[in-house]
Amino acid sequence: MGSSAEPATAAVVVIGNEILSGRTVDANLPYLARELNALGIRLREARFVPDDEAMIVEAVNACRQRWAYVFTTGGIGPTHDDITAAAVARAFNRRLVRHPEAERRLRAYYPPERLNEARLKMADMPEGAELIDNPVSVAPGFRIENVYVLAGIPRVAQAMFEGIRRTLAGGPPIVSASVLLFAPEGEIAAPLAALQKRFPDVEIGSYPFFRFDRPGTSIVLRGTDRTRLEEALTCLRNIAAELGIDTAEEAAASGTRQE
Amino acid sequence: MGSSAEPATAAVVVIGNEILSGRTVDANLPYLARELNALGIRLREARFVPDDEAMIVEAVNACRQRWAYVFTTGGIGPTHDDITAAAVARAFNRRLVRHPEAERRLRAYYPPERLNEARLKMADMPEGAELIDNPVSVAPGFRIENVYVLAGIPRVAQAMFEGIRRTLAGGPPIVSASVLLFAPEGEIAAPLAALQKRFPDVEIGSYPFFRFDRPGTSIVLRGTDRTRLEEALTCLRNIAAELGIDTAEEAAASGTRQE
Repeated sequence: MGSSAEPATAAVVVIGNEILSGRTVDANLPYLARELNALGIRLREARFVPDDEAMIVEAVNACRQRWAYVFTTGGIGPTHDDITAAAVARAFNRRLVRHPEAERRLRAYYPPERLNEARLKMADMPEGAELIDNPVSVAPGFRIENVYVLAGIPRVAQAMFEGIRRTLAGGPPIVSASVLLFAPEGEIAAPLAALQKRFPDVEIGSYPFFRFDRPGTSIVLRGTDRTRLEEALTCLRNIAAELGIDTAEEAAASGTRQE
Repeated sequence: MGSSAEPATAAVVVIGNEILSGRTVDANLPYLARELNALGIRLREARFVPDDEAMIVEAVNACRQRWAYVFTTGGIGPTHDDITAAAVARAFNRRLVRHPEAERRLRAYYPPERLNEARLKMADMPEGAELIDNPVSVAPGFRIENVYVLAGIPRVAQAMFEGIRRTLAGGPPIVSASVLLFAPEGEIAAPLAALQKRFPDVEIGSYPFFRFDRPGTSIVLRGTDRTRLEEALTCLRNIAAELGIDTAEEAAASGTRQE
């Protein structure tokens, strides 16, 4: 994980009927995508599954065998539809057991008359799981091998991630730069493709837009070698100048930025 | 598809490096989730993949064999990173061919001096594909068997979906109701689980919140039989009353609503 030859990779598994029913708009994937990339960890896929044990098992197993890190969000609360811990235990073929330290934290937090079996269920985890602190609402997440099980509520998921961030082995930081070309995508596709061929180590993304009443294309360059990125950016500006295409800086960025 | 015994199902495949890099927040999954559920089509999973042919092929093939409908978004523009049509052709083991009607539309729209090979590439589709109209920017999407290939730009994706909506065979409409209980999830988990057992045909979701400075739980009931939903809702209100828990209507809804 995180060697300079092979950047660290990750997948996100978002768990919950409420996302797929359209009731709730997920906020965890955008957060994790930004944060992981900032750590030099490439997010390679995301899967959204309902509160369905077989589907959670399948998604977790597919992702954990393929990517360095897997982050799940959702389904670790006290109610009947919170089945993530049991599903992850099944994915690893491990028993679901009550984690003593998780139980201790719940007992320390809740007055005895409020600590019912439903709340204690939040201490049930796959055997051998390591706790992920929850500074917001106590009930911890957990890690088992390369799978990190986080809460679904965004501020809890984010607080959990903040706590584990320093333990993640990132690859070389991914640097990006972007520039706006005031030409439609279709008119710069050929020189862009040629540029991509010349810079196979720089990922060149092309995203059409309409701004200031003009059609244009936002070009995003990403890679791990800032010098190569700057070279590609210079080539791109030269191409635009030769074609008589106006350029501008991406509004959200000031030149080269690190995502 | 869409028989009353087996509700119609769907998957969404969101294609694009820009989502996984954290640069762009996807807006197509929330839109499709809402719209499909409104049609009585249950969205069962979503996969986010990068502009990587093998990963697109795998996601499309996994989903099309399992669900009644698959909707992809992204990667059908003119640039080098737009590889969705080629990947879908490979997923179906079909040749990628220039679609005559798509080509005609592009030729009718662009002046000859602006219709370059990159733009004509937008007419390349798997053999046998059926066009999906694009009233925004002409270049069509396409359908092949149960896979619907839509644009990535949300207003284009939405316009394309509007055009095909009437052709989709929905199951019985999914009705939902939700109510706020001013009690933490952990205190109502046991009666909720009992309620779910009593109404196996009603999906009962439980989502904690903090509003008006009080912890509470939003309960969402979903199903296809409005009478059963109302029965479950009445039981839920009775449970709350017996436990001395305040209730309120979900702010966004006025009682029972159809999602």
